Amino acid sequence: MVWTFIGAIAAILTSLSFIPQIARALRTKSVKDVSLVTVYQLSLGVTLWIIYGFYRRDPIIICANSISLITLIILIYLYFNYSLPQKQEKGAK
Amino acid sequence: MVWTFIGAIAAILTSLSFIPQIARALRTKSVKDVSLVTVYQLSLGVTLWIIYGFYRRDPIIICANSISLITLIILIYLYFNYSLPQKQEKGAK
Repeated sequence: MVWTFIGAIAAILTSLSFIPQIARALRTKSVKDVSLVTVYQLSLGVTLWIIYGFYRRDPIIICANSISLITLIILIYLYFNYSLPQKQEKGAK
Repeated sequence: MVWTFIGAIAAILTSLSFIPQIARALRTKSVKDVSLVTVYQLSLGVTLWIIYGFYRRDPIIICANSISLITLIILIYLYFNYSLPQKQEKGAK
């Protein structure tokens, strides 16, 4: 029982871990120090975890990684929203 | 067989996902846009995953999350190494 609880807390903490990063990006409107390779690599990784979860019929794997993927897609959207105008500004100078 | 391969690639991609972020921080010596809350939350999450992995006696869970934890500790070290001097500089101005 206590182990299931530890596993559940672990899944919640890791799957929601990019929420503070999204909040920071929204607040500062700056993402230049965030590695896009890390975000892409994680997105591909959790997508494969979701596929693996369907094979194992494990709702925890599917659910936790789907939440991660949604937050990562939001972060990629913010990345291009905030980093492209900065680059264009630099190009115009 | 193909599913084990997909699971293995998923584990490798996600556990090594902070290597590009570490490389970026080392290159730019700047971490101000990286959310420390995200890094702390992930560190706590993967630590709980490791504990859960010992309970389930699952070497994949233990191994993948231990690698993640090591990269996150390196990132926390770099964060304080690069962000504190910047703050002190700002304070001195």
